Amino acid sequence: MARAGVLLLVLAAVAVVAFASDADPVADFVLSAANGPVTGSNFAFRGLNNVNVTSGQGSGARSANVATFPALTLIKKLLALPVQGISYTYINYAPCGQNPIHTHPRATELLFVIEGQLYVGFVDTNNTLFSTTLNAGDAFVFPRGLIHFQQNTSPYGGARALAALNSQNPGTQRVGSALFLPSGIPGTITQVAFNAQAAALEAIKQNFPASGNPVGTSDTGCGRGFTYQDN
Amino acid sequence: MARAGVLLLVLAAVAVVAFASDADPVADFVLSAANGPVTGSNFAFRGLNNVNVTSGQGSGARSANVATFPALTLIKKLLALPVQGISYTYINYAPCGQNPIHTHPRATELLFVIEGQLYVGFVDTNNTLFSTTLNAGDAFVFPRGLIHFQQNTSPYGGARALAALNSQNPGTQRVGSALFLPSGIPGTITQVAFNAQAAALEAIKQNFPASGNPVGTSDTGCGRGFTYQDN
Amino acid sequence: MARAGVLLLVLAAVAVVAFASDADPVADFVLSAANGPVTGSNFAFRGLNNVNVTSGQGSGARSANVATFPALTLIKKLLALPVQGISYTYINYAPCGQNPIHTHPRATELLFVIEGQLYVGFVDTNNTLFSTTLNAGDAFVFPRGLIHFQQNTSPYGGARALAALNSQNPGTQRVGSALFLPSGIPGTITQVAFNAQAAALEAIKQNFPASGNPVGTSDTGCGRGFTYQDN
Amino acid sequence: MARAGVLLLVLAAVAVVAFASDADPVADFVLSAANGPVTGSNFAFRGLNNVNVTSGQGSGARSANVATFPALTLIKKLLALPVQGISYTYINYAPCGQNPIHTHPRATELLFVIEGQLYVGFVDTNNTLFSTTLNAGDAFVFPRGLIHFQQNTSPYGGARALAALNSQNPGTQRVGSALFLPSGIPGTITQVAFNAQAAALEAIKQNFPASGNPVGTSDTGCGRGFTYQDN
Amino acid sequence: MARAGVLLLVLAAVAVVAFASDADPVADFVLSAANGPVTGSNFAFRGLNNVNVTSGQGSGARSANVATFPALTLIKKLLALPVQGISYTYINYAPCGQNPIHTHPRATELLFVIEGQLYVGFVDTNNTLFSTTLNAGDAFVFPRGLIHFQQNTSPYGGARALAALNSQNPGTQRVGSALFLPSGIPGTITQVAFNAQAAALEAIKQNFPASGNPVGTSDTGCGRGFTYQDN
Amino acid sequence: MARAGVLLLVLAAVAVVAFASDADPVADFVLSAANGPVTGSNFAFRGLNNVNVTSGQGSGARSANVATFPALTLIKKLLALPVQGISYTYINYAPCGQNPIHTHPRATELLFVIEGQLYVGFVDTNNTLFSTTLNAGDAFVFPRGLIHFQQNTSPYGGARALAALNSQNPGTQRVGSALFLPSGIPGTITQVAFNAQAAALEAIKQNFPASGNPVGTSDTGCGRGFTYQDN
Repeated sequence: MARAGVLLLVLAAVAVVAFASDADPVADFVLSAANGPVTGSNFAFRGLNNVNVTSGQGSGARSANVATFPALTLIKKLLALPVQGISYTYINYAPCGQNPIHTHPRATELLFVIEGQLYVGFVDTNNTLFSTTLNAGDAFVFPRGLIHFQQNTSPYGGARALAALNSQNPGTQRVGSALFLPSGIPGTITQVAFNAQAAALEAIKQNFPASGNPVGTSDTGCGRGFTYQDN
Repeated sequence: MARAGVLLLVLAAVAVVAFASDADPVADFVLSAANGPVTGSNFAFRGLNNVNVTSGQGSGARSANVATFPALTLIKKLLALPVQGISYTYINYAPCGQNPIHTHPRATELLFVIEGQLYVGFVDTNNTLFSTTLNAGDAFVFPRGLIHFQQNTSPYGGARALAALNSQNPGTQRVGSALFLPSGIPGTITQVAFNAQAAALEAIKQNFPASGNPVGTSDTGCGRGFTYQDN
Repeated sequence: MARAGVLLLVLAAVAVVAFASDADPVADFVLSAANGPVTGSNFAFRGLNNVNVTSGQGSGARSANVATFPALTLIKKLLALPVQGISYTYINYAPCGQNPIHTHPRATELLFVIEGQLYVGFVDTNNTLFSTTLNAGDAFVFPRGLIHFQQNTSPYGGARALAALNSQNPGTQRVGSALFLPSGIPGTITQVAFNAQAAALEAIKQNFPASGNPVGTSDTGCGRGFTYQDN
Repeated sequence: MARAGVLLLVLAAVAVVAFASDADPVADFVLSAANGPVTGSNFAFRGLNNVNVTSGQGSGARSANVATFPALTLIKKLLALPVQGISYTYINYAPCGQNPIHTHPRATELLFVIEGQLYVGFVDTNNTLFSTTLNAGDAFVFPRGLIHFQQNTSPYGGARALAALNSQNPGTQRVGSALFLPSGIPGTITQVAFNAQAAALEAIKQNFPASGNPVGTSDTGCGRGFTYQDN
Repeated sequence: MARAGVLLLVLAAVAVVAFASDADPVADFVLSAANGPVTGSNFAFRGLNNVNVTSGQGSGARSANVATFPALTLIKKLLALPVQGISYTYINYAPCGQNPIHTHPRATELLFVIEGQLYVGFVDTNNTLFSTTLNAGDAFVFPRGLIHFQQNTSPYGGARALAALNSQNPGTQRVGSALFLPSGIPGTITQVAFNAQAAALEAIKQNFPASGNPVGTSDTGCGRGFTYQDN
Repeated sequence: MARAGVLLLVLAAVAVVAFASDADPVADFVLSAANGPVTGSNFAFRGLNNVNVTSGQGSGARSANVATFPALTLIKKLLALPVQGISYTYINYAPCGQNPIHTHPRATELLFVIEGQLYVGFVDTNNTLFSTTLNAGDAFVFPRGLIHFQQNTSPYGGARALAALNSQNPGTQRVGSALFLPSGIPGTITQVAFNAQAAALEAIKQNFPASGNPVGTSDTGCGRGFTYQDN
């Protein structure tokens, strides 16, 4: 019958559209796996602040989002996945350390400084910088999808911050890594993007760390009389 | 002409529907007032952690959301309101202090413990409790709209936590305050809700603090051998 | 190849995020099972008004939502599940019967009185009661996530109402059931929530019916000269 | 300054985009006008069922949505507009009366039969009809944007139904009215739509009532042995 | 244990609600099948403009949406499905050809004229026509769910247009096909919809092409002195 | 009264949250200004393809979105703004011309090639490039918020494309312009982002055109034997 055919077609269509949005939840919660009773521990992410920064690294981060929650199998329990349009990233900054220029393609970020002082900023779609210096206890908003950064202003001590993002899978795209890590981007593309010579960009690319964690150079000047200005 | 009439009607309809959702932003940001140049300070909320808990009070909180950002007129600048579906509440707990049972009608909450130890839990729509004990650095999710609570497990020291909510105006409804502070709820309504005698509920109502900040009783037992269990 | 690895990772991520929102549909409809031709009957929920209220019970309800539609297997047909962000609950009130204080964590409710007279109200996040008396043919809105209730004002006859909710799985959390039915909530938590003594709350808990359907007490006074006021 | 210019531009952009979506609310409620204290009455729509059907008219309807709530000025009070993505339409059917073929461009509809028997149906985007007969107490879903209809199956008595729609302004477009009431649609457009001769369509247009309420013809046959089939 | 039961129930609920909305994406992209490495070709739809119009047919169309992307198996590669709330339809118009009156139940359409001249229009929910003539390079918006049409104004040459729709599965419902192709719609329903006699509608139905592609009649007059007016 | 105070507070809150999302429309359309009768012309954007590329410029673009529609005052009519979550940008490429690396913070893009051949690509959040070469008639999807680019592969002729974006105000952020045009970004920030020396980045900044339209260099090699590869 024609009707039965319709059914199969509809089911097939469903198979490919099953993912969608993080707007409104349609259940209290959803379980991603089942190997034991569900308890409160399945809603917890323990040790989110357990982030080290090794020497020469600007910052380290640990995220509690849909990509990291399923990996918590060491707790040997059912995983109660919190899929409700929100996630956290905890960031540990080395002295003068940066969380380099990046975007989150699917979320606005609200940053809270737990310890230390950070110089933070974002650039809007009119190419205007909005930046300020934050102390422990201050919060700052980075609107969705816009280029932003943070830097620990102290050459002596670390800094720590918590970033809330309004998606369970906000994504992160570091500008440097996106342009210089992939194989295959023709030189012509980055040359035009920066209106620069091939040699200059090739030098940057050769020097770019495969880890995606740039370490900066001796020119950064953090803490040596540099004054961060509000913009 | 009939067309001109249609126009006015449509504009009138617009006037009453202008508010709506906090799903997707349609601009980098929006300014709620204009009395000077916009800078990065307009995206900052300073001193979010500046929360005191007076004696006899279980906890104190300070929120960075659409209700509190516009009040920041002391900074004498344009206010760049971050309206992108996210907000923060910083909570300071007294020893044994609680953030009493409440709901957020328009948001899921992700709680991060900055200092101390908290016993946290929520009840789902099947009347099952999910609870656990969190240490500093742990995070926990409270699904949207469900009854939940936190208690500092220590009788000696304070605790501090940061709550991210995925709405710029999540709202908070404390169950005790909602039932016993409003004038006009007939006794019959609360009696049936709790299957209780009028006298028992009237006694609770008489004793309920007008501030909405319950202080608990001598029965609470926090720290005196009480063991918080995971559920 | 690295690319193949990427693929598996992405597919795994999909597996756990497949549920999400009830905002916009992306198909005419979706079928939850397939054992025969699809007809109009698969879009119908028959006998939604077939709700009894047994003696001593305040009200009974029957819902047409994602939790109840799949159970309709007695119709021996394919089930065409209407998953488009809307559902119905039909409520039958005993004389003086109540639909006790509750919230819907994921939906706004629009109530229509079919028969009888109801006293209805909700409490907003400023702890203000908004209440009125509705007659057959009247409608009333309960904003999303806020505490609300209905009571049949007549001691002699029943009442009937239909509640539309803008989610296919709105959820219902009765305040009394959520606080007194779960095992494991420490007494300290409810004591602080209500600023009450342990004994008073323990008495309520002991008397709370395991069915979650409170029957009220002899104090309710409905119909005996009680006047319901607008607030 | 350039910054001040940016500000004005952004504010202007806001002026034209202020309406948007009915997805998630960002406040408990919103008041559309202010001329007195807010009470529960401001959340009520009284007499939604007060709908007459005059002789020769197939059905009558009264809606509680954003277009009709503001008109309730007779209650001489502040209007608390329920803008949370839901509305109601109450429909009164004459004997054999129809709610003629129409669509709701912005909502799914859930219909509940209060009294009488209705033959209902919709056509999906594969041009398949899904129809059935509903009795009092039954519900039926019409997926968003699809062509649908209802007819009272009784030639002797009336029928009544309540339709919930998951938008505060769902819109209604009757196919007949949309094609034959507007001035200016070239004949060629309707001729191709129906693959019909100009004369046939011109005859329909000339006979189409200016009120938009078609009364049918003597051919309808309702109740005279006609059997409505499930499809 | 009761908890294990809860788990199964929740998982079952998930199985039937997995489709939902095309609001916000929660991943960079999603792969609908896996049989080779993913490359840029998996994000391309080639030959969207490869649309013929056979003699006697008003227009032809080819769509790039969730229904058509999975069919591209001829490229023998993994399919990277772009499920992010947007799709395209390319339309090729014969001389005087039309894209007959239709709606998209789940999307707003933005039409761009690539070649030729089109007369376009839509009818709003107040039964007002808004129409104009577009030349190559012009764009026009058809609001979501509303009846609309396009006609090539030239009797000599073809026309081509591209339509963007803000859903990955917008759906299309042609009014003529929806009313005259399905089996089972009682004559009484269409008679009342158009306030017309059974005979007139039966004649239209008999003459309606099974392909759903009406060819118009000799009355259309396109290009023979007909002047399209703005409305 | 306290109630009156509540009212004012609520209205004030509304004033600052009036913009929000481009998810679901709640009206057929909205008019941004009113100085004459509304006709179909108010829904048209004429001459979207009227884009010149001056010598030395890689590409030119013209957008039909909420920022550009209000500027169409030359048509001396009411403006019927299409605010329904969709917009268009028409792009004209010089020989070898590029639309340099950029992101759209609030939209997914679907590109259609009207004339010529384009090499296109995007980088996902795992720093993988997905690129291919498109001919006239092909479409390609750039997922929301991710870095992407297009280049005309021909050194002899121009190319033209149309980009649909699923937001009425998608925003565009060119990486080069965002990093090198704003005043105030400390050198240390870009140095760390690219792991580069201050001198190298200062040279790029000095050479970056104030117009934001980079012209590339003599190194680009387009058309001189360069082969674009799929990735």
